[in-house]
Amino acid sequence: MADPAYVAVDWGTSSFRLWLMDKDDSILAESRSNEGMTTAAKTGFAEVLASHLAKVNSPENLPVIICGMAGAKQGWVEAGYVDVPTSLSSILTRTAIVPGESRDVRILPGLAQRDQTRPDVMRGEETQLLGALGPASTGSQAVCMPGTHSKWVRVTDGRVTGFSSFMTGELFDAISKHTILSHAVAGAEQTPTDEAAFDSAIKAAYAQPAMATNLFFTARSGQLLHGLTAAAAQAKISGTLIGLEIAGAIAAAGAGVSITLVAAGRLQGLYEAAFKALSLSFNTIDADTAVRGGLAAAAKAIWPN
Amino acid sequence: MADPAYVAVDWGTSSFRLWLMDKDDSILAESRSNEGMTTAAKTGFAEVLASHLAKVNSPENLPVIICGMAGAKQGWVEAGYVDVPTSLSSILTRTAIVPGESRDVRILPGLAQRDQTRPDVMRGEETQLLGALGPASTGSQAVCMPGTHSKWVRVTDGRVTGFSSFMTGELFDAISKHTILSHAVAGAEQTPTDEAAFDSAIKAAYAQPAMATNLFFTARSGQLLHGLTAAAAQAKISGTLIGLEIAGAIAAAGAGVSITLVAAGRLQGLYEAAFKALSLSFNTIDADTAVRGGLAAAAKAIWPN
Repeated sequence: MADPAYVAVDWGTSSFRLWLMDKDDSILAESRSNEGMTTAAKTGFAEVLASHLAKVNSPENLPVIICGMAGAKQGWVEAGYVDVPTSLSSILTRTAIVPGESRDVRILPGLAQRDQTRPDVMRGEETQLLGALGPASTGSQAVCMPGTHSKWVRVTDGRVTGFSSFMTGELFDAISKHTILSHAVAGAEQTPTDEAAFDSAIKAAYAQPAMATNLFFTARSGQLLHGLTAAAAQAKISGTLIGLEIAGAIAAAGAGVSITLVAAGRLQGLYEAAFKALSLSFNTIDADTAVRGGLAAAAKAIWPN
Repeated sequence: MADPAYVAVDWGTSSFRLWLMDKDDSILAESRSNEGMTTAAKTGFAEVLASHLAKVNSPENLPVIICGMAGAKQGWVEAGYVDVPTSLSSILTRTAIVPGESRDVRILPGLAQRDQTRPDVMRGEETQLLGALGPASTGSQAVCMPGTHSKWVRVTDGRVTGFSSFMTGELFDAISKHTILSHAVAGAEQTPTDEAAFDSAIKAAYAQPAMATNLFFTARSGQLLHGLTAAAAQAKISGTLIGLEIAGAIAAAGAGVSITLVAAGRLQGLYEAAFKALSLSFNTIDADTAVRGGLAAAAKAIWPN
């Protein structure tokens, strides 16, 4: 086995992922759990990190680079924000050092848009973005990073010019669990996705975003009047939210903008289907590869031996 | 005291209101509780009605006319739907008779729009609508009935041509209680509404409906970056939802449409402020008066002595 060179950690709100990396940025070992910021804030950040380092048999003095919510105010050590517009690589010089640790542990900062009418923040996605595009990307593009709070980032020649968060994932959960539509989607998890219902909801919300909260209601009225299935009701809610998000993001970025999707798994499938339904061309970059790429770039910049 | 002539009941999902009325449609007595359909489905509809009839000392054989969710499938006796397009007064001839009651108890039907792409239903608002406009209204208008599921109804010369439900009220609750924004609005109930934040959210969502789920997120990011108050965060969520609803409804009804608002209390204030912020002219009709007017019209049609 090659020599471990550093440890890379993606520490989100609800998930923790750690990789033991060699100097060529290959993965030597991996450890994952649901000890995200919310859990670790109760059980102790240092303890969570130590247990995962032990699991991968990390050598004692290996440095650790972290991105994500561990750097939030409610996290381990506040890592601040770099204000946009800024270069993709600006985060590399603004890491926060975690005090009291025997090894060198650092947390990357987030990005902030301090605009009065469109304030916005991200933590974790800035690292994914750097890994996805590299520090020297050229041209203009809109980068879509779907999730609980989807981020759409406008990047021109290696600079982040602005970004917008959409509460797509979290609204999907809240609507599916805490409104009358919970009855309409009951049992949908046990059946395959209704692709036709998803496509038509994507198109409807994209064409008429103002009707979004009416389109949600049709998941219920469609069931009452037309026997809509639970899978179709769920696809309608998810398609409406994603179609609304894409309509807003494309309006902000400009039609014809080049789209890069940074995603993995189920979300990758949904967003690729959405772009296809809308005849929007796009490139996909794997989200896991992207975040490790950003953490590797940070490790190289901070510990360049 | 004048002779009681009939009993009028507005039986919603979560509320029950009963009025003892004389033959001139004046209120002789009133009884309210939170024994809506959800509660009554467990404790018994007949028992709930009997207890309120006893409270207002209703004579034994007085007939009862009911509108609302008591006529739903999960209600007392299913009262069906009248399909649109239809006349405002069509509901008067399609009441369901509650079996097994010693007195004459009837439930008014709802309205259904069986369109494949825009299925929609209402129960209770059709009665409010009849009371608000009267059976022989002329001209075209869009009638806004705000609530858990706001209804916008297009009426031309006494006929309902179509309608749309928007999940505004229920989404406000779900977003305020079951997303990360619950932290942003914590304590807002104890402070006055932030009218400036409300107005600016109304305008922003109306101008850019596709940005709605981004506008929600600015309730959080505005708090992180600009110290937005809980009252302003709450006003932003409510203004975004109402602005989105109005944008959708006006797009469906056509700009320049004559708007009638049927509302009372807090919702009346919010929607009137919203229309003013958007420079849309409107007439307001009191929602309680409207529903009693519709129930009175039904009583007169069914028991015309």
